[in-house]
Amino acid sequence: MPEFRKDPVTGRWVILAPDREKRPRQLEKCNDAARTEPCPFCAGNEAMTPPEVMAYRNETSPANSPGWTLRVVPNKYPALVDDDTPVFAQDPFYESRSSFGFHEVIIESPDHVVNMDALGVEQITQILRAYRARMRELINDPRWRYILLYKNHGDRAGATLEHIHSQLIALPTVPERAGDELNGAKRHYESTGRCIYCEMIERELKQRVRVVLNSAHFVAFCPFAPRFAYEIWILPKKHAAAFEQSSDKDILSLAKAIQETITRLNHALHDPPFNYLIHSIPPRETHSVHFHWHIEILPQIARAAGFEWGSGMHINSVAPEDAARLLRDVSL
Amino acid sequence: MPEFRKDPVTGRWVILAPDREKRPRQLEKCNDAARTEPCPFCAGNEAMTPPEVMAYRNETSPANSPGWTLRVVPNKYPALVDDDTPVFAQDPFYESRSSFGFHEVIIESPDHVVNMDALGVEQITQILRAYRARMRELINDPRWRYILLYKNHGDRAGATLEHIHSQLIALPTVPERAGDELNGAKRHYESTGRCIYCEMIERELKQRVRVVLNSAHFVAFCPFAPRFAYEIWILPKKHAAAFEQSSDKDILSLAKAIQETITRLNHALHDPPFNYLIHSIPPRETHSVHFHWHIEILPQIARAAGFEWGSGMHINSVAPEDAARLLRDVSL
Repeated sequence: MPEFRKDPVTGRWVILAPDREKRPRQLEKCNDAARTEPCPFCAGNEAMTPPEVMAYRNETSPANSPGWTLRVVPNKYPALVDDDTPVFAQDPFYESRSSFGFHEVIIESPDHVVNMDALGVEQITQILRAYRARMRELINDPRWRYILLYKNHGDRAGATLEHIHSQLIALPTVPERAGDELNGAKRHYESTGRCIYCEMIERELKQRVRVVLNSAHFVAFCPFAPRFAYEIWILPKKHAAAFEQSSDKDILSLAKAIQETITRLNHALHDPPFNYLIHSIPPRETHSVHFHWHIEILPQIARAAGFEWGSGMHINSVAPEDAARLLRDVSL
Repeated sequence: MPEFRKDPVTGRWVILAPDREKRPRQLEKCNDAARTEPCPFCAGNEAMTPPEVMAYRNETSPANSPGWTLRVVPNKYPALVDDDTPVFAQDPFYESRSSFGFHEVIIESPDHVVNMDALGVEQITQILRAYRARMRELINDPRWRYILLYKNHGDRAGATLEHIHSQLIALPTVPERAGDELNGAKRHYESTGRCIYCEMIERELKQRVRVVLNSAHFVAFCPFAPRFAYEIWILPKKHAAAFEQSSDKDILSLAKAIQETITRLNHALHDPPFNYLIHSIPPRETHSVHFHWHIEILPQIARAAGFEWGSGMHINSVAPEDAARLLRDVSL
């Protein structure tokens, strides 16, 4: 059973999920034998996953059978479980509790597609609609204080299966990194009366040196102080705190921005491994004036190493101005 | 020129060091051609590194020539530079400054040794003496607020050269992760009157479920809330805040503990990539009653991925109790 444990010195929580050790690891094997193992995410292999939570499928096909274009299923090897029974002895020095939450997988194509730029805008739109649908559903549950949507693409970015997918985790607390942004944005609002992200967008569009893409409704730029080489953030140009409040029109516009950004990244860097994640306002705080939802795309080219783990500070050997220029210069 | 840049939302500093992109990357290439390129760290190739800062060498050999058993040199591709001229325009929104600090490499053997367990206790003792010597020298410089010693072993742990080495970075500020520990330990001392690490050692030695090694002067255990699978901490049993105040006897005892721990790790997990780092008290606060220096060994088997980067929370699929049992059970 997974559990949360707290480091007594720093107060940092970790998730211990020993069952995840049993996950199949196709990507680490890198040989033909591994590739010929049946893929649990391909159409026809629905029985290999837990029963679906939702799916976009043709009306005549029954649940958990082929006929879908997108499926959301519980993670078979979850880091969190829907059970908040406090099963652990309470030790004030070594605190632990059951790792209470939801962990879902969004299977983004019925075909064995590996790379996002092989998907059309229509399919990316459908993926974003699924994110929105799951978030809208989960924010109604008062137990969840944060919902994190993320993708791991490629072995070096932590993916264990190559079939295109992303993941959702619902947590009973606001995690540290999301909290840092929420607090920072709030401080800025309190001292200036402005959303810090709106101000950042204005500056980026004025300076133009870090902008990768500028569409009617979205902007993508390499942030001023990026942790990772070629890090890119995508933000709605109009202030919006909650991703799940995006309209159908927003979703379509975002799908186009994501497709173009990922295509630029793949052309410029030859299909790099990357993570992306959505930082949105916590559930039930949807009308915030200070926070601005966004996507962070984090290519995993160099690695966090001893210095990063020991200091919390990242060394990045590519200036965002150079990264943005390279990404802009890609001819599509 | 490297620079520090501050993320305007979170206040998180990063180091931008574009020249590091020019580093040779033998480990990524993984082919024989790469292996036959001359190694800048081997004896005879001293001219390939910047002039040495210190070395243990036979008395007759001149500096920067063969005849050494250990060399410390400035990093040829430093993340930081010894220049605090504020060369950047001050923008209150986007803060930056020159990346002021020292970045050195400790070349741990004149021979092309790759793995630490190929070194004898005598050589590991010499490495630790070099760490101590550099720290003792650098803490006299009032500009440094923190000195971080770390090792990256293996491609997956961020090493770019395989020849055995570690690194030292001197910083003008206490970095976040070191600060978290110092603050947490201080809070505990203020509320209980005890060093939290001394208390942890007592508990670990009493419970015995997470202990890997217990010698006269040092203990190694898998921490209660580890970020990484098989994470191990090594601490002096007697309270000590500053690594650089270790006696020769301490250093010898620590060398034995490190050698045994790394050998156990290599036997149990078939030579995994790992980082290690030393967390010591900041310079000139050497007599602290609340902080306790230690080494953190962080095997890099799984990868930090979208969830970790987006939340700051690690998912670890190996319980420290299981990890410690496996490491203890290795027969040497």
